[in-house]
Amino acid sequence: MLTEVGYARLIMAEVAARAGVGKAAIYRRHATKQGMIFDVLLPDQFLAVPPDRGSLHADLSAVLAEIADSMASPPQGTVPGLLADIHAYPALRDRFAEKYLEAQRQTLTEILDRAAARGELTTRPDPVALNALLVGPVLAWLFLLPESPEQLPVLNSVFLDATLALTGTRSPGAPDDSPR
Amino acid sequence: MLTEVGYARLIMAEVAARAGVGKAAIYRRHATKQGMIFDVLLPDQFLAVPPDRGSLHADLSAVLAEIADSMASPPQGTVPGLLADIHAYPALRDRFAEKYLEAQRQTLTEILDRAAARGELTTRPDPVALNALLVGPVLAWLFLLPESPEQLPVLNSVFLDATLALTGTRSPGAPDDSPR
Repeated sequence: MLTEVGYARLIMAEVAARAGVGKAAIYRRHATKQGMIFDVLLPDQFLAVPPDRGSLHADLSAVLAEIADSMASPPQGTVPGLLADIHAYPALRDRFAEKYLEAQRQTLTEILDRAAARGELTTRPDPVALNALLVGPVLAWLFLLPESPEQLPVLNSVFLDATLALTGTRSPGAPDDSPR
Repeated sequence: MLTEVGYARLIMAEVAARAGVGKAAIYRRHATKQGMIFDVLLPDQFLAVPPDRGSLHADLSAVLAEIADSMASPPQGTVPGLLADIHAYPALRDRFAEKYLEAQRQTLTEILDRAAARGELTTRPDPVALNALLVGPVLAWLFLLPESPEQLPVLNSVFLDATLALTGTRSPGAPDDSPR
């Protein structure tokens, strides 16, 4: 129904009718339309299990792929609609902070801890700034600019190089002028 | 009124009442509430005059400061609300493409042209990818994560370093190991 009518025009009564249940049955599980859509798109914590692939580059690459997938998959208009409603409804903002932001911050902190233990970091970036650099260009590419989702995998390597520059780490493919 | 009632709850009839005019007077100039808010926030083309400060770093720094200011200034909830409505209303999307995206793309192209003429670029990035790297982290910082606007000026230098890494250009303050 999100694909058919769009985020802004989705109505709980029609969701109930399509599901063959009463509205009360839906409202027992989801207090609002926004909360329902959010829970359907994000049933569990986002990135709750940090990828562990042996290098900062591989770990951040996996994080970036998951971020891009989570933003490019929902039907058109859904992510911008939810983002607007997160700012309009405090209850949705709290739920978003808990299921998305907190888990993502912990995941990035753990990835940075492991990279530091391997001696990969010359500078330890703030996890929130790192998160902004990972999630921001994808968000802008898909919803502000808005460009083709098909190009995201290619672009992600560009965005990743920019992010890695922040940590003093070079991509495996980048020219390396420092002694090993 | 945006500050008082918020983007989602702003009603044209109340804007007219506050202005002491009839609704028709407002609708003659602005077809929709969304279009009216957009035109008030962005009366002219965004970044229509490219900064020309003698280096890629200085030019992109000026662009980033203007992007951050344009996103941090509107009342809380306005930018996410407009972004959602750009995806819901094709007329608003066209207006946004014309006044914001096109001007910004031309500005970045001109800045890259000048940097190339000065021999500052080892790689010429795609202007849209560059734009995503400039505007994305600010967007994420303010509206997705969402962190304090007061920290943006400090962060912008971090974001700028990451962006400059994409162009093969180093920040003036960064260690330089290449012969001049």
